[in-house]
Amino acid sequence: MTGLGRFSLNQQTVRQWSLPELVAGCAAAGVRQVGLWREPVREYGLTAAARLVRGAGLGVSSLCRGGFLTADDPAGRAAALADNRAAIEEAAELGAGVLVLVCGGLPPGSRDLHGARERVADALGELGPYTDRHGVRLAVEPLHPMFAADRCVVSTLRQALDLAERFPAAQVGVAVDTYHLWWDDTVAAGLARAGAGGRIAAFQLADWVTPLPEGVLLGRGQLGDGSVDLRWFRERVEEAGYAGPVEVEIFNPALWAREGADVLAEVLCRYRKHVL
Amino acid sequence: MTGLGRFSLNQQTVRQWSLPELVAGCAAAGVRQVGLWREPVREYGLTAAARLVRGAGLGVSSLCRGGFLTADDPAGRAAALADNRAAIEEAAELGAGVLVLVCGGLPPGSRDLHGARERVADALGELGPYTDRHGVRLAVEPLHPMFAADRCVVSTLRQALDLAERFPAAQVGVAVDTYHLWWDDTVAAGLARAGAGGRIAAFQLADWVTPLPEGVLLGRGQLGDGSVDLRWFRERVEEAGYAGPVEVEIFNPALWAREGADVLAEVLCRYRKHVL
Repeated sequence: MTGLGRFSLNQQTVRQWSLPELVAGCAAAGVRQVGLWREPVREYGLTAAARLVRGAGLGVSSLCRGGFLTADDPAGRAAALADNRAAIEEAAELGAGVLVLVCGGLPPGSRDLHGARERVADALGELGPYTDRHGVRLAVEPLHPMFAADRCVVSTLRQALDLAERFPAAQVGVAVDTYHLWWDDTVAAGLARAGAGGRIAAFQLADWVTPLPEGVLLGRGQLGDGSVDLRWFRERVEEAGYAGPVEVEIFNPALWAREGADVLAEVLCRYRKHVL
Repeated sequence: MTGLGRFSLNQQTVRQWSLPELVAGCAAAGVRQVGLWREPVREYGLTAAARLVRGAGLGVSSLCRGGFLTADDPAGRAAALADNRAAIEEAAELGAGVLVLVCGGLPPGSRDLHGARERVADALGELGPYTDRHGVRLAVEPLHPMFAADRCVVSTLRQALDLAERFPAAQVGVAVDTYHLWWDDTVAAGLARAGAGGRIAAFQLADWVTPLPEGVLLGRGQLGDGSVDLRWFRERVEEAGYAGPVEVEIFNPALWAREGADVLAEVLCRYRKHVL
């Protein structure tokens, strides 16, 4: 597929839309795939959400998110594994082949990044067989190093691949998000490696804009507004053999303050201009 | 030297202090080296500042900062080179053997990180002979990847070494700052490589604390307050053969709002507890 056929709208980009508004808005704009988040799906009801999306003929490119697998106490670890099993079941019911994982930060008071990364690996090993049973693949998402302490100890594509490659490719892949990886001059090599191993499970787009807001979580830029060469990324990912959904996921309160349909129209326009 | 003998106080840690207050405060606390910044030095007067610091028997571990070498227009480039030559002269007059370089971000509208990094390399080549003449070494400082767009396109120790190693070690080294490098699981290898090549020109300490403030520039943590294993870094740097100053550089408005002497006392206490 070329053109908009591979485009997917992550629902966080238009957080102002309810799930029915998202489905109707995508239908009106000719968008055929969405990336969903667990919280709004649960709020609407998992079965009802699955029916709504499927009834509209929409594909679900990914479910966000599982992960937070770095707890160093047995109870925290057991709770995280249980939650990730639930997320795998939810992804399966939604028909999402991919569950995106944000691996988790350092436990309170810890400075042991290596230990936290190893606990992520252990958890992936425990979850792997469960993904097989449900036909859902885990996508380890390297997050920007500014999130290493409090959100994700996996900071680079190379680290994500080092983790994923310990497991079968059908169980564990990686999520490539331009916002997190754009600064890294080894990312081209990482994308080639990921493609050669069949590890690219998800591809997400957002631009990098400054200044970063307090907390740095909600500062992602509309496509074309920032420093990321989005087309370069899309071309590298395709060269690496990835032909799956291209999901636009932008956390930005300025976009949420506008009409959802306006935002989607702008995203599609920018996508044609800066990505295709 | 062991203990506090290698300790250096970067003047930005106690920005509330004037230069004479800094000199007096260090003398009172037994601190024997300071890291200086160009702006407050100029404000006081370069010659007077050099005389003041030297008269108090204080060493100057580094001058911050030169750099901003990524301009893609001839006038901007010429201005940057002229400014860096002036900074080299200032460092020489102050007796600072090291000029820390913040290499600069992307020019407005540019998405070409590689090109910007190559312009930094070109500029280092032009400045190298000038450093020889003045006995001042350039220290390329990799800044955290969250600064790649607007402040420094050199984001990892490996990138900084790739740049520095194109030039004689006496001309160009690297600045190792825990705040910028702590998240990187390749940093141990980078420190060993830097040490083997005699490239560690400066070693700076700050801790990583969250949430990051708006703009992310002034969110550095007091030693021990955050996620960085400072002692691990100090040991790795020493194993790599570095025996120079250990400079504490914390940009944090909460520290600036307090009495300078209190802040310095706390820094020294934390240094003993978390670094030595």
